[in-house]
Amino acid sequence: MAAPVNPPRGMRDFLPADKARREHALGIIRGVYRAHGFDEIETPVVEDYARLHAGLGGDNEKLSFSILKRGIRPEALAAAAKAGDAEALADLGLRFDLTVPLTRFYASHRAELPPVFRSIQIAPVWRAERPQKGRYRQFVQADIDIIGEAGPLAEMELITATSQALAALGLQGCVIRVNDRRILFGLLERCGFAADTHDRALITVDKLDKIGAAGVVDELREIDAAASERLGEVLAAVEPALAGEGIPLTRSAIAAALPGAAEQPGAAAGIENLAALGEALAGALPEGVELRFDPTLVRGMGYYTGTIFEVAHPGSGSSVGGGGRYDGMVGRFLGQDVPAVGFSIGFERVVDLIALPEASGPEAVALIADADAELADLLALKRELVARGHRVRIEKRQKNMKALLARVAAEGFAAIANVRAGVRDADALELRPLAGGAAPGRLP
Amino acid sequence: MAAPVNPPRGMRDFLPADKARREHALGIIRGVYRAHGFDEIETPVVEDYARLHAGLGGDNEKLSFSILKRGIRPEALAAAAKAGDAEALADLGLRFDLTVPLTRFYASHRAELPPVFRSIQIAPVWRAERPQKGRYRQFVQADIDIIGEAGPLAEMELITATSQALAALGLQGCVIRVNDRRILFGLLERCGFAADTHDRALITVDKLDKIGAAGVVDELREIDAAASERLGEVLAAVEPALAGEGIPLTRSAIAAALPGAAEQPGAAAGIENLAALGEALAGALPEGVELRFDPTLVRGMGYYTGTIFEVAHPGSGSSVGGGGRYDGMVGRFLGQDVPAVGFSIGFERVVDLIALPEASGPEAVALIADADAELADLLALKRELVARGHRVRIEKRQKNMKALLARVAAEGFAAIANVRAGVRDADALELRPLAGGAAPGRLP
Repeated sequence: MAAPVNPPRGMRDFLPADKARREHALGIIRGVYRAHGFDEIETPVVEDYARLHAGLGGDNEKLSFSILKRGIRPEALAAAAKAGDAEALADLGLRFDLTVPLTRFYASHRAELPPVFRSIQIAPVWRAERPQKGRYRQFVQADIDIIGEAGPLAEMELITATSQALAALGLQGCVIRVNDRRILFGLLERCGFAADTHDRALITVDKLDKIGAAGVVDELREIDAAASERLGEVLAAVEPALAGEGIPLTRSAIAAALPGAAEQPGAAAGIENLAALGEALAGALPEGVELRFDPTLVRGMGYYTGTIFEVAHPGSGSSVGGGGRYDGMVGRFLGQDVPAVGFSIGFERVVDLIALPEASGPEAVALIADADAELADLLALKRELVARGHRVRIEKRQKNMKALLARVAAEGFAAIANVRAGVRDADALELRPLAGGAAPGRLP
Repeated sequence: MAAPVNPPRGMRDFLPADKARREHALGIIRGVYRAHGFDEIETPVVEDYARLHAGLGGDNEKLSFSILKRGIRPEALAAAAKAGDAEALADLGLRFDLTVPLTRFYASHRAELPPVFRSIQIAPVWRAERPQKGRYRQFVQADIDIIGEAGPLAEMELITATSQALAALGLQGCVIRVNDRRILFGLLERCGFAADTHDRALITVDKLDKIGAAGVVDELREIDAAASERLGEVLAAVEPALAGEGIPLTRSAIAAALPGAAEQPGAAAGIENLAALGEALAGALPEGVELRFDPTLVRGMGYYTGTIFEVAHPGSGSSVGGGGRYDGMVGRFLGQDVPAVGFSIGFERVVDLIALPEASGPEAVALIADADAELADLLALKRELVARGHRVRIEKRQKNMKALLARVAAEGFAAIANVRAGVRDADALELRPLAGGAAPGRLP
């Protein structure tokens, strides 16, 4: 068991410097998304147990933290436990993503929302995964979703806004790989996989990064040996391009990568969709963000129906964001299909990649108070400096002043001012810059 | 059972307007607290079950949501349930306040924090209370705490910063009632209550608001009839002042309200403390915030050791904030006493009282797109307007334009611009103000 003062396993405390860095990054993301016309919402961190286990969360459902029912007699609890009746033990659970709560929210509040609803959700989610480097049990996702728009304008706005957010964070060299589930299904059909094996086959194709083309072909042989061989040929044909510069998101490049694919009607619709995306987004993305077609991109969740995308960054081993179209999902709550697309930034991966800008705004000043300075005077000086736009902290003079100055400099204070007994007037304070701080001088 | 698309019982979804209002208010509070030299931290929403049930949370412990242990065999779970062994069923729980996590955080990270640590925590907490008007099962607290400062400077900085935050939110007419637990204990001693009955007696005095002086005296008779009568006389003596203008926080006013109190050493220390506070804070608080001495103020939690305070606002039936000194609490984790004081704003009560300012910053523009406008052109126009500092949303032209314009105006958009097919140049857009929007004209 962990030492008694540590945070729970796999979860983190954030000290002031970390917290400031996180809030800074979240503020940038929030600002870009708002400028792009999205509106922030919030839902409770818990949802009904039944909703979290309705089959929409894939493997994440098994990783959810459940909330013990309250006010149940021990005997009833014991009976439920023995019977393995999870719903009798737990009535709520911590959300494992922001998509399940969003669809519930939309179904609940549809009448109060615009017909095309562009949502921002920036919030923590929880998964009881085995803790490992870079993987946490509480982590923040930054999602935008567009509900109610069936056409590719939705994908375009999501990709533009997310690209701008990543660029505003200073992330250079992002590559957004794009595919369409209909192209994947068409490919499986053309290779000869029976329709009822497609979902299973995609789970295997999704492992391409880990087990390689040979591994995928091997595993798919269990479903259909001949189809698996044909898929292997397709993978071998696209592999050099994917390992190199990638495939541009244009109609001609897609056709060249998957010869004959457009003859299958589903895949043809997917290709048209991606070509339209590529055309409209050409030149529309910020510098340093590239769009690429990747016919092997699957994305894990089973609910995707059309466009899917994933963002890679050279500084991160795994994707820093991803999403796709999930047209069938809202309908499960609403009893009426509503088109929907979402793009999620993996905030924990992104926040490790960004550099914080130099502190801007009002200078932070540490008041170094002599032992005999009056508290009322210190408060008055602090109040006056705060009113002038400074961030102010009172520190008591100590023997080892070198240590104190080094500490407050490390904590982001740019200047100090000594306060002797009897000093009440902020204009009488002498401002002394700390290492790397501003030039000396009187306070403004 | 609630309809399937509602949020869990006692919890709330926040729609865009509500969420914007909340974020605006949180931003103000965070900004004031940062300017006053406090640093924001964050802890996980869950803590170990044992920590949440260590006796530091008073009645709140009973209201905590517990997280079911994972990976336990049904038989083991059933045995734990039958035996009523809560810790074998639940290993974690949702925090019910921010103070228990803060003390755990401080004990864990003390070496990385300044000797006097001024923390900000703005975060949700959870209590499984019976839902009722204005009381929720998930709600936000905004806490500042100072750990490591034994003198009254800590209380002064907390009260100044919180007063400024409330003033910055536009709350006028706040009254901060102040007391000191040592004055309360001294009073009980002077009335004749045995030392081992003091905690019990305070629980009764805390009900003064609800059951009145007569009710308190009645209930205290069960402990000591003669002492109860004497306390009744004290309450009767201060009642007129408390019901009227209140008692100023000055040495003379305190002495007049509690004649002879200063003869009891503990109470004398408390009176000195409050007099110092009142003196230093005179004239230091923003207009519209008053300080008052209230010898009947108890504050519920058992961990308070010195100064206690509570903020009342004429617009709220219950307090909008409160806190106090809890010198013994950090020591429970650290094995070494560390002084600590905290001030918590009840965010949910405050956010209902504030008026949002008129929208400022870049104008929000809705682009009304004709059906034949090219998506690429729409994206380019949006991109250009966003780059110029606007918030932009694309809306498709519809038959009922009156309804569309009314909706986007209600959603905070100040202007519209019609986009016809072929328009690619933002300078060619004509900006038309919506009701209450800016004057007509070209975009800047």
